Amino acid sequence: MIDVPTLVEQARAGRPRAVARLISLVENASPQLREVMAALAPYTGRAYTVGLTGSPGVGKSTSTSALVSAYRRLGKRVAVLAVDPSSPFSGGALLGDRVRMQDHATDPDVFIRSMATRGHLGGLSWAAPQALRVLDAAGCDVILVETVGVGQSEVEVAAQADTTVVLLAPGMGDGIQAAKAGILEIGDLFVVNKADRDGADATARELNHMLGLGEAREPGDWRQPIVKTVAAREEGIDELVDALEKHRAWLAETGELTVRRRRRAAAEIEAIALAALRSRIGDLRGDRHLDALAGRVAAGELDPYGAADELVSGLTDR
Amino acid sequence: MIDVPTLVEQARAGRPRAVARLISLVENASPQLREVMAALAPYTGRAYTVGLTGSPGVGKSTSTSALVSAYRRLGKRVAVLAVDPSSPFSGGALLGDRVRMQDHATDPDVFIRSMATRGHLGGLSWAAPQALRVLDAAGCDVILVETVGVGQSEVEVAAQADTTVVLLAPGMGDGIQAAKAGILEIGDLFVVNKADRDGADATARELNHMLGLGEAREPGDWRQPIVKTVAAREEGIDELVDALEKHRAWLAETGELTVRRRRRAAAEIEAIALAALRSRIGDLRGDRHLDALAGRVAAGELDPYGAADELVSGLTDR
Repeated sequence: MIDVPTLVEQARAGRPRAVARLISLVENASPQLREVMAALAPYTGRAYTVGLTGSPGVGKSTSTSALVSAYRRLGKRVAVLAVDPSSPFSGGALLGDRVRMQDHATDPDVFIRSMATRGHLGGLSWAAPQALRVLDAAGCDVILVETVGVGQSEVEVAAQADTTVVLLAPGMGDGIQAAKAGILEIGDLFVVNKADRDGADATARELNHMLGLGEAREPGDWRQPIVKTVAAREEGIDELVDALEKHRAWLAETGELTVRRRRRAAAEIEAIALAALRSRIGDLRGDRHLDALAGRVAAGELDPYGAADELVSGLTDR
Repeated sequence: MIDVPTLVEQARAGRPRAVARLISLVENASPQLREVMAALAPYTGRAYTVGLTGSPGVGKSTSTSALVSAYRRLGKRVAVLAVDPSSPFSGGALLGDRVRMQDHATDPDVFIRSMATRGHLGGLSWAAPQALRVLDAAGCDVILVETVGVGQSEVEVAAQADTTVVLLAPGMGDGIQAAKAGILEIGDLFVVNKADRDGADATARELNHMLGLGEAREPGDWRQPIVKTVAAREEGIDELVDALEKHRAWLAETGELTVRRRRRAAAEIEAIALAALRSRIGDLRGDRHLDALAGRVAAGELDPYGAADELVSGLTDR
């Protein structure tokens, strides 16, 4: 048994090892997670979370690293959570190996962690928000959530963040791809990275055009900005931070921040409730009540729906 | 609304259209499924179900078709259910196109149907057993369940059948593959098809060796037979039917049939119960109770586990 109160106290004091250990508990779906989350709850809700998403090759990790530098210059404590929904392997080696991230490896106010979510019940919906709670309670001012790998999981990551940044790069046909993937809807900010390359202006124009095709905006609505960057040279990154801070202020002023965080919390509660119910049903294997119901169904005395009703009605009394 | 009692009556009278329509209700997860299953329950439990599994290229559909012929010669009503867990498309075209299956297309005592299970809640565990109930109640004596496509779903299909037949073919390195895939454990009978090809004896020997490596058997235990066939020429098929009938008799005598059917019914009840609970949780989206819980979690007043507990405890009272 892990001494959760001590571990939480150490994490709150910013000790990287304690933070890492708590995230490992999340990753391994420890039975003590419940205790951990209860202990963390009062200290959550302060961090600003930014999700970064985009096709492979657009420069997500370079941009993430440049953002870390920029926020560090502003004196902020920063965490990077790289979520890989396609891999069951984890431990940070993946991120630690990246040259740019190593710039921050010795900075005590930067916490970098990769996390595998495959094999988790409910995938990302389950693990990522809990890891965010740990980083939040550990006093991180800004948490950058980056997906490693591709797919619809990107949309899920976006759903975990206060602000979602969609990255594009010139000459990848990304504009059209973005429209297809429904990525226009999830982006609060767009970045055209590698803006020193041919076609950057065309990509930005195309994107601008597509964003303009949406419905007419009300006054006070958020107008999604397009920021051009060359992340490898840290160009345009201060402008990106400005745009992020503007979005953050807009979220706070309009009450949208509360709306988003409640929506996230609701999804998290649902995921946990469903996992709990699934586990209770699993526990019934070999249970005499289920056995008896199965016997009646196998004998044709009862249909499986009627049996399921009986099973469910007995479930929450346990 | 469909007139379920009439449809069930027609299906019981062996009308192919009614049977097809009921299976479509299963496939489309019709809200009337509950009513259908309740109406069918008293007429289920008579059919003998045989699952056929094996790698692509071993001759599953040819063997299935040869088995249909053999059972027809014995005067049995036969159904073929080809389950494709990888495809959302269905309707029978896939099977109807196969030359061999067309031999049976005009036989009123043969019912052939393919079924897509992708996209179903809980996949196969949900849809296949209900389709089997329909075919069972429709008076089919033997139901052959064949997977189209590859993967772990094969093991699931096996779990739906009274008897599981694992097919191998020479020269595919199948023996070793089989051991890896845990297919030795699920096979009640093994078929080495294409037995006129080089290496058939070697495959049978290898398989025999591996089966012998298992634990010592008690008297009365089932000894898995290996049948050599050339399904394309219907060679060895009568021997396969003999072996199936022996296994069926063994299942009945030892009580194993009841055990297996109860286990299947229990899994089916679980799947339905879980789907019902998932749906109830989904219905809560926008519910004031969940909203209030999410608000408290977002504010750090409550942890998500505590909130999930409250959600679950209110769930079965609804």
